[in-house]
Amino acid sequence: MELKIPDGLRISPERLTGHLVRFIKKELESSGLSKLVLGVSGGIDSTVVAYLSAAAIGPANVTGVVLPYAQSNPDNIKDAEMVISRLGLNRRHVDITPMIDAYFKDHPSDDLTRRGNKMARERMSILYDISAELGALVIGTSNKSEILMGYGTLFGDLACALNPLGNLYKTQLRQLAEHLGVPPRVMGKAPSADLWAGQTDEGELGLTYEMLDILLYQMVDRRLDSRKLEKLGFAADLIQRVRDKIARNEFKRRLPRLADLPG
Amino acid sequence: MELKIPDGLRISPERLTGHLVRFIKKELESSGLSKLVLGVSGGIDSTVVAYLSAAAIGPANVTGVVLPYAQSNPDNIKDAEMVISRLGLNRRHVDITPMIDAYFKDHPSDDLTRRGNKMARERMSILYDISAELGALVIGTSNKSEILMGYGTLFGDLACALNPLGNLYKTQLRQLAEHLGVPPRVMGKAPSADLWAGQTDEGELGLTYEMLDILLYQMVDRRLDSRKLEKLGFAADLIQRVRDKIARNEFKRRLPRLADLPG
Repeated sequence: MELKIPDGLRISPERLTGHLVRFIKKELESSGLSKLVLGVSGGIDSTVVAYLSAAAIGPANVTGVVLPYAQSNPDNIKDAEMVISRLGLNRRHVDITPMIDAYFKDHPSDDLTRRGNKMARERMSILYDISAELGALVIGTSNKSEILMGYGTLFGDLACALNPLGNLYKTQLRQLAEHLGVPPRVMGKAPSADLWAGQTDEGELGLTYEMLDILLYQMVDRRLDSRKLEKLGFAADLIQRVRDKIARNEFKRRLPRLADLPG
Repeated sequence: MELKIPDGLRISPERLTGHLVRFIKKELESSGLSKLVLGVSGGIDSTVVAYLSAAAIGPANVTGVVLPYAQSNPDNIKDAEMVISRLGLNRRHVDITPMIDAYFKDHPSDDLTRRGNKMARERMSILYDISAELGALVIGTSNKSEILMGYGTLFGDLACALNPLGNLYKTQLRQLAEHLGVPPRVMGKAPSADLWAGQTDEGELGLTYEMLDILLYQMVDRRLDSRKLEKLGFAADLIQRVRDKIARNEFKRRLPRLADLPG
């Protein structure tokens, strides 16, 4: 199946860059702080946020933190370091292995999702600790495709003070990354939570991000019903699977539910 | 200064109990899960949530987790265990010392707030891991007084799926606790984040919770301006301090800020 990218998914990279740079500046200003800290993974999302942060407040005010686990792909660590040094950010390196292994030694689990969530939350708590040390805000890197599909750990990588990418689909992000001059090594990488060797988001979904984004855009932004989505060429069971995933992950996109008082 | 507790802060404990029990049942039902997990600290808030959870779905479906750090007050641990066994909850005990010490060994800090926040986030990540293991929801225990004043760690103890206490002031919670039959040892305890020996919320604020709750209720719920609050007997500088604290901690009560797209 070949589908045309709808105009609504196209961006003007220059305009968008200026807009996101202003967003970052404004959010920092209203917080009263002047520094940013982010986890840099070697993937496209955190790389784009590193570029935007450096453009907004200068690399001397941005700290990039590399947070590998023992079994993380060494290429990703190398790429993360490369992005940090190319941009001239302040660099931190915190190996999360001791904390993660200390927990799972006494509570063994080979459930890769549980292990991955524990790691994502460890990274969050380290980024927040560094942000307290530096007087910085934690800037997030999740994109709209991931947020809708629930590819992210609640109170883990989804946790941040501000996020310039949260309303950008992966496809739009790629256009932005190209404009910003993100290195081809990073651009060419298949999106992955890096939970195991060879894992890719697209492999798990059985769909390219380009196709997924077109479906999400028509379903969520343009609110097309299933009949119209099928007419565009999407299979009925795929539509249903994506709808279910969006609904099932709604809890990651809202605040905790507080009981009200009896009326 | 002696102030009458306004009627709006009084509760009907029976009615409130029924209301909160229904809230817990309804939230669980809509999640498709049937179990709850919570951190039990030996303080009044988590004890009340333990009682409400047991009343809502039966103690066999509730897991109470005790999560001490090496220097935690042993009396609190004992009280937490006592609450769990008195209610007949499933019990877990996870010492967070190895994970916390593994981090601070290489990143030493004697900043008690940073250390306390790291611990709160470790506890959150363990509760969420246990919830994944059991197929349970994490039920939170923060009350309205704490949430407004920012006494809580973002993505730490403030993180949960549902929270029956989030719209109850501490004073109201105490009335509820008495009705539920919370043991006097727990009832009599001074509210504390237990960051250091002898720390109490009220000591740090220089104000009893009863006075604070009256001020918060008149300021937040009834929206009285500073002039009217002074007429009630509150000092101008106290009013300002509390207003500032509420405003400064607003970031703990909202979702991360996502950039929008250029218009």
